[in-house]
Amino acid sequence: MEETFEAIRLWFEKEPYAKMMNMKLSEIGLGSALVEMKISEGMKNIFGTVHGGAVFSLIDGAFEAAANSHGTVAVALNVNVSYINPAMPGDILYATAREVSRSRKISAYYIEVKNDKGELIAACQAMAYRKKDPLPL
Amino acid sequence: MEETFEAIRLWFEKEPYAKMMNMKLSEIGLGSALVEMKISEGMKNIFGTVHGGAVFSLIDGAFEAAANSHGTVAVALNVNVSYINPAMPGDILYATAREVSRSRKISAYYIEVKNDKGELIAACQAMAYRKKDPLPL
Amino acid sequence: MEETFEAIRLWFEKEPYAKMMNMKLSEIGLGSALVEMKISEGMKNIFGTVHGGAVFSLIDGAFEAAANSHGTVAVALNVNVSYINPAMPGDILYATAREVSRSRKISAYYIEVKNDKGELIAACQAMAYRKKDPLPL
Amino acid sequence: MEETFEAIRLWFEKEPYAKMMNMKLSEIGLGSALVEMKISEGMKNIFGTVHGGAVFSLIDGAFEAAANSHGTVAVALNVNVSYINPAMPGDILYATAREVSRSRKISAYYIEVKNDKGELIAACQAMAYRKKDPLPL
Repeated sequence: MEETFEAIRLWFEKEPYAKMMNMKLSEIGLGSALVEMKISEGMKNIFGTVHGGAVFSLIDGAFEAAANSHGTVAVALNVNVSYINPAMPGDILYATAREVSRSRKISAYYIEVKNDKGELIAACQAMAYRKKDPLPL
Repeated sequence: MEETFEAIRLWFEKEPYAKMMNMKLSEIGLGSALVEMKISEGMKNIFGTVHGGAVFSLIDGAFEAAANSHGTVAVALNVNVSYINPAMPGDILYATAREVSRSRKISAYYIEVKNDKGELIAACQAMAYRKKDPLPL
Repeated sequence: MEETFEAIRLWFEKEPYAKMMNMKLSEIGLGSALVEMKISEGMKNIFGTVHGGAVFSLIDGAFEAAANSHGTVAVALNVNVSYINPAMPGDILYATAREVSRSRKISAYYIEVKNDKGELIAACQAMAYRKKDPLPL
Repeated sequence: MEETFEAIRLWFEKEPYAKMMNMKLSEIGLGSALVEMKISEGMKNIFGTVHGGAVFSLIDGAFEAAANSHGTVAVALNVNVSYINPAMPGDILYATAREVSRSRKISAYYIEVKNDKGELIAACQAMAYRKKDPLPL
C-alpha cells in the first residue's frame, strides 16, 4: 500500500502533463487524493478567468490518483462536471477526490474543487473501469 | 454574425490556454464549431497515452466556440464526458460541437472527439448559461 | 420557510406521480430533503431487479423537494446518475439530497440513494434553473 | 439476432414497469431502439407538467433495449440527462437510442426524447457494462 502511494507520488512528479499544469499531489490514501494546482498565466481564457480545461485537468488528476490508489490500473469511463464559480489567475485550486463505491470492475468517485478562499469552483462525479494489471510504476 | 465568427477565430489565436494546448479553430458556425488539437509530448500521462485533461480541454474549446457563436457570452454549467478510446501521442484530434437546443437562457451541445483515423475518442454532452452581455472581443 | 416546507409536504401527498411511485417526503429543510420509496411489484424489470426509472424517480423527487425548498420554482436542467448496486423488490429506498451551491439563477445538488441495509444504490449530481415565481402551492 | 429482438419485444409486453409507464417498444435493431410512451394523468407533477422521472423511465427503456440488443446482458453504469423542454399530459413521447460505441465490456449510447410535435424534450448520454451472460428471456 505504502509502495503504491509512493509510486503515485513519483508519477505526479514525473508526468509531463502534471508538470505543464502545475499539479502537485498533496495527499494520497486508499480511494482518496488531494491535488493542488497553482494557476498560471497560461491557463487564462479570453475572458480573463481560468479555462474550464485547466479546472478539469485538476479534477482528472485527483480522480486518477484516487482510482489507481489500490495498486491496479483504473481507466476513466465517465466524468460529469458542474461548474459552480469561476476560478481566477493567481488562485491556488485544491481538488479532493473520495471513493463513493468500488466493486471488482467498477469504482465511483466524488470530487470537489475549491480555491484558496474555500469557495467551491466545481463539483464532479466520475466512474472508472478497473483492470487487473498492476500499476506500471 | 461574420464579425462574431472572426472575433472567435482571433480569440483562439490569442488565448493563452488555446496556445498552450495546440488548439486551432478550424470551423465556426451558428451553434457549431470544429477544433483541432495536435497532441504534444507534454500531454502524455504516466501510462504513455494522452491525459484526460487534454482531451477535455479540446472538448471545452469546441463547446465554448459553439456556445459563444451567437455573439453573447455563454458560460459552462455542466459537462459530461464519456471516454471511449485512448488518444495517443502524435494523434491529431478533432472535436465537433453541435447545438442540440437553445433558449433565451440555456443552450445544450453534443460534442464528439475523433482521432485522425476517424476513431471515436470521447463523446460529450454540455449545457451553457447564456448571459445578455455581448462578447468582449 | 415553515409554510414552504408544509406546502412541499402537501405536494408530495397530492402529486399523482409521487403516489403512483410510493414516494413519501420524510424530511425537508433549506436545500435538503429525504424521500423514501417502498418498492412495489410494479417496479420490477424483466431481470427481477428494480427498474432504473423507479430509482431515478426517487432521485428526482428528492432533488425537486430540495431545489424548491427556498420557496421559488426551480426546474431541472441536468441530472447525472451513477448506478452502484441493484435495488431489489421489497427494498425500502432512501434518497437524500443536499445543496452543493446556490446562486441567483442556478443551484446544484448531490443526491444518494441507499436501501434499508444502508447499501449505496445510486449517486447523483443535479443542477436546477431558479425562476423568480413563487411556488404555486 | 431476430430471436433476441423478439425476446426484447416480449419483455416490453410483459415487464411490470413498462406496463405501468405505458411504454411500447416500436423498433429494435442492433444497438438501437425506439420506445414510445403515452403520457397518463398519473405522470403529472404538482406543476401540471410531466414528472422528470417519467421522462427518464422512457429514456431508460430505450437505453436498455438498445444495450441488450446484442443478446447478452448489459447493465446501466451511468446516465446523464439534459432537460430541454417540459413534456405535457396528453403528449406521446418518443425516445430513440443509438449506440455510439461498443467494446467487449463497455458500450455507450446517445438518446433523444421528442414529443409528437417533434420538439426536443430531453437529450441523454448513457454507458452500460456488458456481462457475458445471455439474456434470460
